[in-house]
Amino acid sequence: MTVAEIARSFVERLERRDWDGFSALLHPDVVYEVPQTRERIRGRDTYVRFNIEYPGDWHLAPEIVLADEGGRDASVLFRWELDGDSMQGIVYLEVDDGVVTKVTDLWPEPYEPPPGREHLVERY
Amino acid sequence: MTVAEIARSFVERLERRDWDGFSALLHPDVVYEVPQTRERIRGRDTYVRFNIEYPGDWHLAPEIVLADEGGRDASVLFRWELDGDSMQGIVYLEVDDGVVTKVTDLWPEPYEPPPGREHLVERY
Repeated sequence: MTVAEIARSFVERLERRDWDGFSALLHPDVVYEVPQTRERIRGRDTYVRFNIEYPGDWHLAPEIVLADEGGRDASVLFRWELDGDSMQGIVYLEVDDGVVTKVTDLWPEPYEPPPGREHLVERY
Repeated sequence: MTVAEIARSFVERLERRDWDGFSALLHPDVVYEVPQTRERIRGRDTYVRFNIEYPGDWHLAPEIVLADEGGRDASVLFRWELDGDSMQGIVYLEVDDGVVTKVTDLWPEPYEPPPGREHLVERY
Protein backbone atom coordinates (compact mmCIF):
# COMPACT_ATOMS: atom_id res chain seq x y z
CA MET A 1 0.00 0.00 0.00
CA THR A 2 1.09 3.59 -0.58
CA VAL A 3 1.32 5.95 2.37
CA ALA A 4 -2.03 7.47 1.31
CA GLU A 5 -3.66 4.03 1.11
CA ILE A 6 -2.39 3.17 4.58
CA ALA A 7 -3.86 6.42 5.91
CA ARG A 8 -7.26 5.76 4.33
CA SER A 9 -7.27 2.14 5.56
CA PHE A 10 -6.40 3.33 9.05
CA VAL A 11 -9.67 5.28 9.24
CA GLU A 12 -11.79 2.73 7.37
CA ARG A 13 -10.67 -0.19 9.55
CA LEU A 14 -11.43 1.81 12.68
CA GLU A 15 -14.91 2.48 11.32
CA ARG A 16 -15.42 -1.24 10.64
CA ARG A 17 -14.06 -2.21 14.09
CA ASP A 18 -11.72 -4.47 12.13
CA TRP A 19 -9.30 -4.73 15.04
CA ASP A 20 -7.05 -7.36 13.44
CA GLY A 21 -6.79 -5.34 10.25
CA PHE A 22 -6.26 -2.14 12.22
CA SER A 23 -3.50 -3.75 14.30
CA ALA A 24 -1.79 -4.96 11.13
CA LEU A 25 -1.23 -1.33 10.09
CA LEU A 26 0.59 -0.47 13.34
CA HIS A 27 4.20 -0.85 14.45
CA PRO A 28 4.42 -2.74 17.78
CA ASP A 29 5.96 0.39 19.36
CA VAL A 30 3.54 2.88 17.82
CA VAL A 31 3.11 6.12 19.78
CA TYR A 32 -0.24 7.93 19.92
CA GLU A 33 -0.45 11.57 21.00
CA VAL A 34 -3.16 14.19 21.51
CA PRO A 35 -1.30 17.53 21.70
CA GLN A 36 -4.39 19.37 22.96
CA THR A 37 -4.64 17.26 26.13
CA ARG A 38 -0.96 16.24 26.23
CA GLU A 39 -2.02 12.59 26.34
CA ARG A 40 0.29 9.85 25.07
CA ILE A 41 -0.16 6.10 24.59
CA ARG A 42 2.79 3.80 23.92
CA GLY A 43 2.51 0.51 22.09
CA ARG A 44 0.14 -1.17 19.68
CA ASP A 45 -1.71 -3.31 22.21
CA THR A 46 -2.56 -0.38 24.46
CA TYR A 47 -3.50 1.86 21.54
CA VAL A 48 -5.82 -0.76 20.03
CA ARG A 49 -7.37 -1.26 23.49
CA PHE A 50 -7.92 2.52 23.71
CA ASN A 51 -9.92 2.41 20.47
CA ILE A 52 -11.88 -0.71 21.45
CA GLU A 53 -12.84 0.92 24.74
CA TYR A 54 -13.67 4.34 23.25
CA PRO A 55 -17.21 4.93 24.53
CA GLY A 56 -20.32 5.73 22.52
CA ASP A 57 -21.63 4.85 19.07
CA TRP A 58 -18.86 6.63 17.15
CA HIS A 59 -18.42 6.71 13.39
CA LEU A 60 -15.80 8.24 11.17
CA ALA A 61 -15.48 8.70 7.41
CA PRO A 62 -12.50 10.09 5.44
CA GLU A 63 -13.03 13.50 3.78
CA ILE A 64 -9.54 14.47 2.57
CA VAL A 65 -6.57 12.09 2.50
CA LEU A 66 -3.16 13.69 1.86
CA ALA A 67 0.28 12.11 1.85
CA ASP A 68 3.87 12.91 1.13
CA GLU A 69 4.46 9.92 -1.12
CA GLY A 70 8.18 10.49 -1.21
CA GLY A 71 8.30 10.58 2.57
CA ARG A 72 6.56 9.21 5.62
CA ASP A 73 3.84 11.71 6.50
CA ALA A 74 0.11 11.46 5.81
CA SER A 75 -3.07 12.96 7.19
CA VAL A 76 -6.78 12.30 7.04
CA LEU A 77 -9.41 14.96 7.61
CA PHE A 78 -12.44 12.96 8.68
CA ARG A 79 -16.05 13.47 9.68
CA TRP A 80 -16.63 12.25 13.25
CA GLU A 81 -20.07 11.39 14.57
CA LEU A 82 -20.78 10.47 18.15
CA ASP A 83 -24.25 10.01 19.63
CA GLY A 84 -25.82 12.44 17.15
CA ASP A 85 -23.09 15.09 17.28
CA SER A 86 -20.90 15.71 14.24
CA MET A 87 -17.52 17.39 13.89
CA GLN A 88 -14.28 17.08 11.93
CA GLY A 89 -11.09 15.54 13.22
CA ILE A 90 -7.61 15.25 11.74
CA VAL A 91 -5.20 12.40 12.21
CA TYR A 92 -1.55 12.73 11.21
CA LEU A 93 0.38 9.51 10.63
CA GLU A 94 4.06 8.72 10.32
CA VAL A 95 4.67 5.60 8.25
CA ASP A 96 7.88 3.60 8.19
CA ASP A 97 8.37 0.44 6.10
CA GLY A 98 4.64 0.11 5.53
CA VAL A 99 3.49 0.44 9.15
CA VAL A 100 2.36 3.38 11.24
CA THR A 101 4.89 4.43 13.89
CA LYS A 102 3.22 7.63 15.13
CA VAL A 103 -0.40 8.79 15.35
CA THR A 104 -1.35 12.37 16.24
CA ASP A 105 -5.01 13.27 16.72
CA LEU A 106 -6.29 16.85 16.47
CA TRP A 107 -9.82 17.80 17.52
CA PRO A 108 -10.89 21.31 16.47
CA GLU A 109 -13.98 21.87 18.61
CA PRO A 110 -16.51 24.69 18.12
CA TYR A 111 -15.78 28.05 19.75
CA GLU A 112 -17.18 31.56 19.68
CA PRO A 113 -15.37 33.97 17.32
CA PRO A 114 -13.46 36.82 18.95
CA PRO A 115 -14.98 40.29 18.55
CA GLY A 116 -13.58 42.88 16.15
CA ARG A 117 -13.88 41.24 12.77
CA GLU A 118 -17.62 41.38 12.18
CA HIS A 119 -17.08 43.95 9.40
CA LEU A 120 -15.22 41.33 7.34
CA VAL A 121 -16.97 38.10 8.25
CA GLU A 122 -20.37 36.46 7.73
CA ARG A 123 -21.66 33.53 9.80
CA TYR A 124 -23.00 30.36 8.23
CA MET B 1 4.71 26.13 -8.40
CA THR B 2 3.38 22.73 -7.36
CA VAL B 3 0.36 22.56 -5.08
CA ALA B 4 2.69 21.81 -2.15
CA GLU B 5 4.88 24.82 -3.00
CA ILE B 6 1.83 27.07 -3.15
CA ALA B 7 0.74 25.81 0.28
CA ARG B 8 4.16 26.43 1.83
CA SER B 9 4.39 29.89 0.20
CA PHE B 10 0.93 30.73 1.53
CA VAL B 11 2.17 30.35 5.11
CA GLU B 12 5.60 31.87 4.53
CA ARG B 13 4.23 34.99 2.84
CA LEU B 14 1.75 35.49 5.69
CA GLU B 15 4.66 35.27 8.13
CA ARG B 16 6.63 37.87 6.12
CA ARG B 17 3.58 40.18 5.85
CA ASP B 18 4.29 40.06 2.10
CA TRP B 19 0.77 41.18 1.26
CA ASP B 20 1.39 41.58 -2.47
CA GLY B 21 2.95 38.13 -2.68
CA PHE B 22 0.19 36.67 -0.54
CA SER B 23 -2.51 38.22 -2.73
CA ALA B 24 -0.84 36.81 -5.83
CA LEU B 25 -1.53 33.29 -4.54
CA LEU B 26 -5.28 33.94 -4.22
CA HIS B 27 -8.17 33.76 -6.67
CA PRO B 28 -10.18 37.03 -6.69
CA ASP B 29 -13.22 35.07 -5.45
CA VAL B 30 -11.38 33.04 -2.82
CA VAL B 31 -13.56 31.83 0.05
CA TYR B 32 -12.20 31.55 3.60
CA GLU B 33 -13.98 29.47 6.23
CA VAL B 34 -13.53 28.60 9.90
CA PRO B 35 -15.81 25.58 10.52
CA GLN B 36 -15.45 25.84 14.30
CA THR B 37 -16.97 29.34 14.44
CA ARG B 38 -18.96 29.06 11.19
CA GLU B 39 -17.28 32.24 9.93
CA ARG B 40 -16.88 32.88 6.21
CA ILE B 41 -15.12 35.60 4.21
CA ARG B 42 -15.70 36.06 0.49
CA GLY B 43 -13.17 37.59 -1.87
CA ARG B 44 -9.43 38.24 -1.95
CA ASP B 45 -9.53 41.87 -0.88
CA THR B 46 -11.58 41.18 2.24
CA TYR B 47 -9.55 38.11 3.13
CA VAL B 48 -6.23 39.95 2.79
CA ARG B 49 -7.68 42.77 4.91
CA PHE B 50 -8.67 40.18 7.55
CA ASN B 51 -5.05 39.03 7.76
CA ILE B 52 -3.62 42.57 7.79
CA GLU B 53 -5.95 43.50 10.64
CA TYR B 54 -5.41 40.30 12.65
CA PRO B 55 -4.40 41.65 16.06
CA GLY B 56 -1.29 40.85 18.05
CA ASP B 57 2.31 39.96 17.25
CA TRP B 58 1.51 36.65 15.54
CA HIS B 59 3.96 34.31 13.88
CA LEU B 60 3.54 31.09 12.00
CA ALA B 61 5.96 28.48 10.66
CA PRO B 62 5.18 25.39 8.56
CA GLU B 63 5.69 22.01 10.27
CA ILE B 64 4.14 19.50 7.82
CA VAL B 65 3.14 20.36 4.25
CA LEU B 66 1.05 17.74 2.42
CA ALA B 67 -0.54 17.87 -1.00
CA ASP B 68 -2.44 15.76 -3.45
CA GLU B 69 -0.22 16.57 -6.41
CA GLY B 70 -2.61 14.94 -8.85
CA GLY B 71 -5.47 16.99 -7.49
CA ARG B 72 -6.21 20.31 -5.90
CA ASP B 73 -5.99 19.75 -2.13
CA ALA B 74 -3.14 20.68 0.19
CA SER B 75 -2.69 21.31 3.89
CA VAL B 76 -0.14 22.87 6.19
CA LEU B 77 0.22 21.98 9.85
CA PHE B 78 1.89 25.03 11.33
CA ARG B 79 3.18 26.32 14.63
CA TRP B 80 1.30 29.46 15.68
CA GLU B 81 2.67 31.92 18.20
CA LEU B 82 0.74 34.89 19.51
CA ASP B 83 1.89 37.14 22.32
CA GLY B 84 3.91 34.36 23.97
CA ASP B 85 1.35 31.57 23.52
CA SER B 86 2.07 28.70 21.16
CA MET B 87 -0.25 26.19 19.50
CA GLN B 88 -0.67 24.32 16.23
CA GLY B 89 -3.07 25.25 13.47
CA ILE B 90 -3.98 23.56 10.22
CA VAL B 91 -4.90 25.25 6.99
CA TYR B 92 -6.50 23.32 4.12
CA LEU B 93 -6.25 24.84 0.65
CA GLU B 94 -8.00 24.15 -2.62
CA VAL B 95 -5.89 25.15 -5.61
CA ASP B 96 -7.18 25.66 -9.13
CA ASP B 97 -4.98 26.71 -12.06
CA GLY B 98 -2.19 27.78 -9.71
CA VAL B 99 -4.25 29.94 -7.37
CA VAL B 100 -6.00 29.26 -4.07
CA THR B 101 -9.80 29.20 -4.36
CA LYS B 102 -10.69 27.98 -0.86
CA VAL B 103 -9.01 28.33 2.54
CA THR B 104 -10.19 26.42 5.61
CA ASP B 105 -8.61 27.11 9.00
CA LEU B 106 -8.76 24.64 11.88
CA TRP B 107 -7.69 25.60 15.40
CA PRO B 108 -7.35 22.66 17.81
CA GLU B 109 -7.22 24.40 21.19
CA PRO B 110 -6.18 22.75 24.47
CA TYR B 111 -8.87 20.91 26.46
CA GLU B 112 -9.04 18.63 29.47
CA PRO B 113 -9.14 14.90 28.64
CA PRO B 114 -12.37 13.07 29.47
CA PRO B 115 -12.20 10.67 32.41
CA GLY B 116 -12.11 6.89 32.00
CA ARG B 117 -8.91 6.30 30.04
CA GLU B 118 -6.27 7.01 32.65
CA HIS B 119 -5.33 3.31 32.72
CA LEU B 120 -4.15 3.54 29.10
CA VAL B 121 -2.76 7.06 28.86
CA GLU B 122 0.17 9.06 30.24
CA ARG B 123 0.33 12.88 30.27
CA TYR B 124 3.27 14.80 28.86
